[in-house]
Amino acid sequence: MGWGDLGAFGEPSKETPNLDQMASEGMLFLDFYTANPLCSPSRAALLTGRLPVRNGFYTTNAHARNAYTPQDIVGGIPDYELLLPELLKKAGYTNKIIGKWHLGHRPQFHPLKHGFDEWFGSPNCHFGPYDNRALPNIPVYRDWEMIGRYYEDFKIDLKTGEANLTQIYLQEALDFISKQQASQQPFFLYWAIDATHAPVYASKHFLGTSQRGLYGDAVREIDDSIGKILKHLQKLGISEDTFVFFTSDNGAALISAPKQGGSNGRFLCGKQTTFEGGMREPAIAWWPGHIPAGGVSHQLGNVMDLFTTSLSLAGLQPPSDRQIDGIDLLPAILQGKLIDRPIFYYRGNEMMAVRVGLYKAHYWTWSNSWEEYSKGIDFCPGQNVSGVTTHTQEEHTNLPLLFHLGRDPGEKYPLSFVSDEYQRAMEQISAVVQQHKVTMVPGEPQLNVCDKAVMNWSPPGCEKLGKCLKQPESDPKKCFWPH
Amino acid sequence: MGWGDLGAFGEPSKETPNLDQMASEGMLFLDFYTANPLCSPSRAALLTGRLPVRNGFYTTNAHARNAYTPQDIVGGIPDYELLLPELLKKAGYTNKIIGKWHLGHRPQFHPLKHGFDEWFGSPNCHFGPYDNRALPNIPVYRDWEMIGRYYEDFKIDLKTGEANLTQIYLQEALDFISKQQASQQPFFLYWAIDATHAPVYASKHFLGTSQRGLYGDAVREIDDSIGKILKHLQKLGISEDTFVFFTSDNGAALISAPKQGGSNGRFLCGKQTTFEGGMREPAIAWWPGHIPAGGVSHQLGNVMDLFTTSLSLAGLQPPSDRQIDGIDLLPAILQGKLIDRPIFYYRGNEMMAVRVGLYKAHYWTWSNSWEEYSKGIDFCPGQNVSGVTTHTQEEHTNLPLLFHLGRDPGEKYPLSFVSDEYQRAMEQISAVVQQHKVTMVPGEPQLNVCDKAVMNWSPPGCEKLGKCLKQPESDPKKCFWPH
Repeated sequence: MGWGDLGAFGEPSKETPNLDQMASEGMLFLDFYTANPLCSPSRAALLTGRLPVRNGFYTTNAHARNAYTPQDIVGGIPDYELLLPELLKKAGYTNKIIGKWHLGHRPQFHPLKHGFDEWFGSPNCHFGPYDNRALPNIPVYRDWEMIGRYYEDFKIDLKTGEANLTQIYLQEALDFISKQQASQQPFFLYWAIDATHAPVYASKHFLGTSQRGLYGDAVREIDDSIGKILKHLQKLGISEDTFVFFTSDNGAALISAPKQGGSNGRFLCGKQTTFEGGMREPAIAWWPGHIPAGGVSHQLGNVMDLFTTSLSLAGLQPPSDRQIDGIDLLPAILQGKLIDRPIFYYRGNEMMAVRVGLYKAHYWTWSNSWEEYSKGIDFCPGQNVSGVTTHTQEEHTNLPLLFHLGRDPGEKYPLSFVSDEYQRAMEQISAVVQQHKVTMVPGEPQLNVCDKAVMNWSPPGCEKLGKCLKQPESDPKKCFWPH
Repeated sequence: MGWGDLGAFGEPSKETPNLDQMASEGMLFLDFYTANPLCSPSRAALLTGRLPVRNGFYTTNAHARNAYTPQDIVGGIPDYELLLPELLKKAGYTNKIIGKWHLGHRPQFHPLKHGFDEWFGSPNCHFGPYDNRALPNIPVYRDWEMIGRYYEDFKIDLKTGEANLTQIYLQEALDFISKQQASQQPFFLYWAIDATHAPVYASKHFLGTSQRGLYGDAVREIDDSIGKILKHLQKLGISEDTFVFFTSDNGAALISAPKQGGSNGRFLCGKQTTFEGGMREPAIAWWPGHIPAGGVSHQLGNVMDLFTTSLSLAGLQPPSDRQIDGIDLLPAILQGKLIDRPIFYYRGNEMMAVRVGLYKAHYWTWSNSWEEYSKGIDFCPGQNVSGVTTHTQEEHTNLPLLFHLGRDPGEKYPLSFVSDEYQRAMEQISAVVQQHKVTMVPGEPQLNVCDKAVMNWSPPGCEKLGKCLKQPESDPKKCFWPH
């Protein structure tokens, strides 16, 4: 989902009454970012509080490439990494993930081995349908074992866009919350729905209800579900004890527009890019009785902050034996403070850009290659900023392209290199970047090796269902990451 | 000002708390349009309830050209046209215009000859400073006579952007409202401020206060002033008797960005064009006790509707001896009804596009000429939609380009000509267009002839001030309209 997909963020159809109300009862973050313009690294960053280049969710196969966890990925979340649910356990929390995990699908990466107590959902994207020969269909798990596969047991009709998945995920969420409330146990729920990820889907009741087409139907169903979750918390009398945060893992995929792609408002480009459209996210914090209603924050925030902030809420300290990139947002949320901190925009192991205050400096620019672009893969449809949305990897480390995101949120007008403003801003930014680079110790890259043999042929539980498939011989290769 | 300039419409700096509050207490219109992508014709349409092609505010000097009322324009609002204040007089209203008139500056076009009882402001844009030889500085009027000139008596500092004009206009408004309330007389106030028109300005107190630079400072001052006007109405106890509507006369001038230009959100291009960025406007209706708070309307609205709606509020009928294009919006505002009506997008005397429901059909596309574009005049900076933002005038009357503005508000993805959806939509649209064209009787074009002799050399009142200038010999010519 993109920054511009919510009514509260200016989507002209204004079809998200529940999220808009969540914002009016809570706090809207206008300058909130993901740690990566792609799903897996962003989610790994959210759960570890660390940049993907630290937690291993990146590739070194080629320069500045986005990578994720398709079915044939060999890597996943390293055991060394401490995930939010692992830490929350120490404070007595029960942790559940509903939806897409995306931190590796091989046995050692299973979410229940990394702190979650319960899981309902899938390890990978809901791409498909596959023929179960060249590629197996993606399994859906309940806790340790698979209970079926997408397109087989969990239908997604690619023709009509109908799928009941968001409703199933919603019911799972409501049931889990009820159970926790009944047992008076604290809980962490990671509700990782994916209806707005192509192939986009919605359930029958929502199909055709949006001005925006199928994508809008999916947004409306998510919006409706969030309204139901918040009302459920209120009905159970635990809304004042429950901190809720809504955000997305990357900008809207404009490549899928207009039928399956959302909106990044007036920001440049979308998913896969380190322009604002790829990484600035809708974000709302909600905690009645604690967060002042109708608040708006310009705090530079990041999904990694949810790690540190959640620990803070649980009375826990973040690990001190490693670099944590997330900060505790509670002073911003509860006292309206503005904490000075930069935002780093990575693609693979390359720091492409950095934001300090209202200034954003691009050290590298790239949308995608001419080769991919000529095939019709366009991350910036209808947008072309000369020298910025480049189709070759352009290095600017000696003289970064500098934008003022207040006057120019669309990254269209680089500041003049000879202006005083450029000199002043770059002096400050250079110090931040130097400090960052000096202390950066990259983790072992997890997204380099792919192997058909590791696909979801025979996930645990497949025997009971008669759904085990024959695994081909191992043939590990460097994964190919074109972007 | 553009659609995207308000926090309520998704401007990422969210610096319009007063307008946002006005929206939360009133009704936000998401699909509200101007009648023309340029100032004079738009204002003529607002005050007459008629398309510029009917009321004469267009040119036939060249095909599909925007025209307005610079100092050397010979034409202006024809006597035949009935303006809103002329009609409101019949219901006992006192009418005042504060700010830019722009319906002609020669004596016969004076606003007090067209229904206004009071005027404080200027007949033309605040361009300048001029040398009073080749060009006179623009006069500022109080009622019948000039009281000074811009840059001479009413300072605008082009270097710092400082000017006190919005504060003066605000005080004029507050005083007028107080006077009317004291005398218990109904009033119509047309508060036509122009701080966001290049050269953009703000008063000292607001300079440097916006994240968005000088343009944002100007927006903040307008926002603050509107807050003060609304509070004044409340303090005087007449807010429940006063209908207030906020809108703009054209989309943000992206040609002036980033320093002097605003935002049209995610819409395509800006001022001067018939793409959404040129003509969709921010719009808020406010009338406590009558309009339900926090309402949002998708009613297709137009500035011309303010003519008809205002008459309706005053218990008057629109003239029946001429075609009125504006409709009465009260059913939409007070009862949430949706009235079926098209939106026509004109440039000069050419109907460039039409919107029916969520579909918009382009019959002609043009941003501006290659010649102007090559000089750096770019109405669509950073945006280029192939075959849509064309630099030659492209006719599509036989096979209009069709967009679905719900799925594709940015006008990036024309529908396939062979799709069923295209056929169905165009059938409906063609009928609307045919009906429109058959009944169209253009007025006498007012914006064809320019003459240096008619400039503001010696406006009424200049003698008292010693500010009369020598008028050159008459040399009428066809005005040159490049866009």
